[in-house]
Amino acid sequence: MCQVPSFFVALSILASFIHQGSSYEYVTKNFTVPVDHFSFTTNATFEMRYLVNDSSWDADTGPIFFYTGNEGDIKLFAENTGFMWELAVEMRAKVVFAEHRYYGESLPFGKDSFSNEKNLGYLTAHQALEDYVDLITALRGDSRIPVIVFGGSYGGMLSAWFRMKYPHIVQGAIAASAPILEFEGMNKCNAFFRIVTSDFQSAADDCRYNIRNSWDAFNQIVKSADGLAWLSKAFQLCKPLAKAADVKDVKDFLSEVYVNLAMTDYPYATNFLMPLPANPILEVCEHLKAPNLKEKELLTQIFKAASVYLNYTGTTKCLDLEDADGPSLGGNGWGFQSCTEMVMPMCSNGVDDMFEPSPWDMNKYAADCKKTFAWVKPQPFLVPKRYGGLELARLSSNIIFSNGLRDPWTSGGVVESLTPSVVSIIIPEGAHHLDLRASNPADPNSVRNARILYKKHIRKWIREYRGTV
Amino acid sequence: MCQVPSFFVALSILASFIHQGSSYEYVTKNFTVPVDHFSFTTNATFEMRYLVNDSSWDADTGPIFFYTGNEGDIKLFAENTGFMWELAVEMRAKVVFAEHRYYGESLPFGKDSFSNEKNLGYLTAHQALEDYVDLITALRGDSRIPVIVFGGSYGGMLSAWFRMKYPHIVQGAIAASAPILEFEGMNKCNAFFRIVTSDFQSAADDCRYNIRNSWDAFNQIVKSADGLAWLSKAFQLCKPLAKAADVKDVKDFLSEVYVNLAMTDYPYATNFLMPLPANPILEVCEHLKAPNLKEKELLTQIFKAASVYLNYTGTTKCLDLEDADGPSLGGNGWGFQSCTEMVMPMCSNGVDDMFEPSPWDMNKYAADCKKTFAWVKPQPFLVPKRYGGLELARLSSNIIFSNGLRDPWTSGGVVESLTPSVVSIIIPEGAHHLDLRASNPADPNSVRNARILYKKHIRKWIREYRGTV
Repeated sequence: MCQVPSFFVALSILASFIHQGSSYEYVTKNFTVPVDHFSFTTNATFEMRYLVNDSSWDADTGPIFFYTGNEGDIKLFAENTGFMWELAVEMRAKVVFAEHRYYGESLPFGKDSFSNEKNLGYLTAHQALEDYVDLITALRGDSRIPVIVFGGSYGGMLSAWFRMKYPHIVQGAIAASAPILEFEGMNKCNAFFRIVTSDFQSAADDCRYNIRNSWDAFNQIVKSADGLAWLSKAFQLCKPLAKAADVKDVKDFLSEVYVNLAMTDYPYATNFLMPLPANPILEVCEHLKAPNLKEKELLTQIFKAASVYLNYTGTTKCLDLEDADGPSLGGNGWGFQSCTEMVMPMCSNGVDDMFEPSPWDMNKYAADCKKTFAWVKPQPFLVPKRYGGLELARLSSNIIFSNGLRDPWTSGGVVESLTPSVVSIIIPEGAHHLDLRASNPADPNSVRNARILYKKHIRKWIREYRGTV
Repeated sequence: MCQVPSFFVALSILASFIHQGSSYEYVTKNFTVPVDHFSFTTNATFEMRYLVNDSSWDADTGPIFFYTGNEGDIKLFAENTGFMWELAVEMRAKVVFAEHRYYGESLPFGKDSFSNEKNLGYLTAHQALEDYVDLITALRGDSRIPVIVFGGSYGGMLSAWFRMKYPHIVQGAIAASAPILEFEGMNKCNAFFRIVTSDFQSAADDCRYNIRNSWDAFNQIVKSADGLAWLSKAFQLCKPLAKAADVKDVKDFLSEVYVNLAMTDYPYATNFLMPLPANPILEVCEHLKAPNLKEKELLTQIFKAASVYLNYTGTTKCLDLEDADGPSLGGNGWGFQSCTEMVMPMCSNGVDDMFEPSPWDMNKYAADCKKTFAWVKPQPFLVPKRYGGLELARLSSNIIFSNGLRDPWTSGGVVESLTPSVVSIIIPEGAHHLDLRASNPADPNSVRNARILYKKHIRKWIREYRGTV
């Protein structure tokens, strides 16, 4: 199975949906930033994109709400972070969504941004943070406008790190579903897949057993040529499986589907990764709740279950396994980040989770990275050293970490309040950064209460900052 | 006059003295660090040098005392930071002096380190800090040994910034004579030269007037060929002045001498920048205390006064103005840093100070930089943005800023305690980081008391850190 359930996977699939029309209004702008903030080896600059709306802004008293863009087209995050838009109206804030370098249209070397190490090597979290420092400094000018940063997932990590490292630039951070502890030496590598499993378990106890049993069923069925043909047809594969070993692609593909379902198990229909019904895992497990399903029957049900995610609209003609990662967002940005500083150890054992056993193997991980990015060596200790995990968070202030208990990334989240101003909020019914989405009648009370608390803290951060003028 | 009274000037002059034999014992080691911590454009590494002594260390309970090396050969700082050595014995600490990249023998590209922008461009404070992060992480291993950083001058800035940015790596910082506020928008540009002036004023009221009057005397005397010849002879110039305009070199040279005297106006004889008597400015002003000295008489006395600094040992045969910056420490490291991120606006007006009027002119400064480093453009806002001045210091913890009131760099120092754990200590009789030097019978009480306080705070920092295990 895949060792890197990435934010990127999810986002890249989403890319096809973002042009369906925007619910929010903004002006799209560019801002010039240095390609390299940390050396004087080059004077190269590029245009980073950002979206801005100041229609509700009170320039005298209103703050700036700044989304620290993560690994994708910034318009995508603007569409899926309704909470910021709603709160901006109430608090008379300027709204800014800043696009992360090397994603969307913020390409430091244009179409050549991914072509070699000299061009791609400036794709790092810290360089992105300094882009945001420059943009905020310019937006703010000589005034002391308070700036609150928001981010979800990797964007939430950036928001938290931003406040930790530059508390003189941003006055507070709402870091939603931000797995800042998903790094070497910080947590258990099997936590992620255990949470995915528990999501399926809570929908129907046998659901997880059927999924776990399916891995062996796949292995058995492809032992014969007939079985191989049957599976290719049953799964409507665009390209039939040629040999037994190819079944690995099917299993990897499904593993990603289960992970993505867990991330997007929202209580109302969404379009975030794929068009999905409310509580999609419940629907998925409707197909997998019978106990002791056997081979072909089991795999048939697995396909029906996966189709809830893969083909909810019923328009997909065949399943393209090679397209497992979805359309690329202009290169393989997150792939590169995963292979350099964003090394998040993950493992499964098939006992505490429903996945095939897959130990964490740093050497194999590095070897896999080398296939795509020949010149890099993953740096698993870079993030722990630079961003300090719990230790730095504890010494910081004005950060809210939120975690949904349905979200597998909670495995690396800050799940206990560290100080009165470094606060953790648990949303029992929440999937991946549900709290940052627009309010919805189906929202559980826990997420409503979380948002009320965010507001309270943000007002306090602003008040305290204004008080130091 | 020179607009950049640099730390470097002083240090480079010192370079000739460091091989006179060491008072302290240490092992010299190398440690491999990446040339670039903030991109993946290169895998190049280099050997940074560090000095270590663990003869007093209690591995179970003792901390690491870590000197954040600044712009010079690290052995130089080891020799002149006696306080650390003394305290290490008392607190059973391991002592480490880390050499700053591009100084001493820590040259990322060997003898080619200064040859072009691709090689020299990695000379930045933040890269150096990450070198220290890596070294401390390696020294510490899996243990939780508390690390206290010490630094004076630019090294003190590094210590303070280290704690601000990496409080999970270092538990506290003694930042002596660290002008973290000597940057754009943070203080008045004329403060530095006012303090230099007040040092001379306090020695003899007419001393500063004579110095101030000397600038015009220089201008007048060189108007005639006779005067030019007289001056060349009176000042024992190795290379006589060829034309009137050359007198600027003499004046710049003397300005630097006055600045260095102010920095090193210690209460006992020292060897820090030059071999000097105790309270050297008193001796200098002995030659300049008569009121209303006229032209040749005045200039003769100026030369006698300057000779206290330039030729205290009486061994200098002639004065080499081209050697004003002293022997180079392997390139022009501080020159480069001043022309990139360490832009410290300075000015004089000849009214509130004893120097010739010299307004701060960023354009001229940048043009001067361009002559040596054609590809760089000074970034006066880089340090304010990244290190946040008072605002970030206030949000930090466990830092002591010390300032001697005789030290011109106090112009950019933190001179008020910001919080109970971000503390400022004023040493009225202190010159440049007197407090970090070895204890001496001539030390004023203020510096003795300061050191007692440092000890108290360091013990508290260590205790608190141990308490979080």
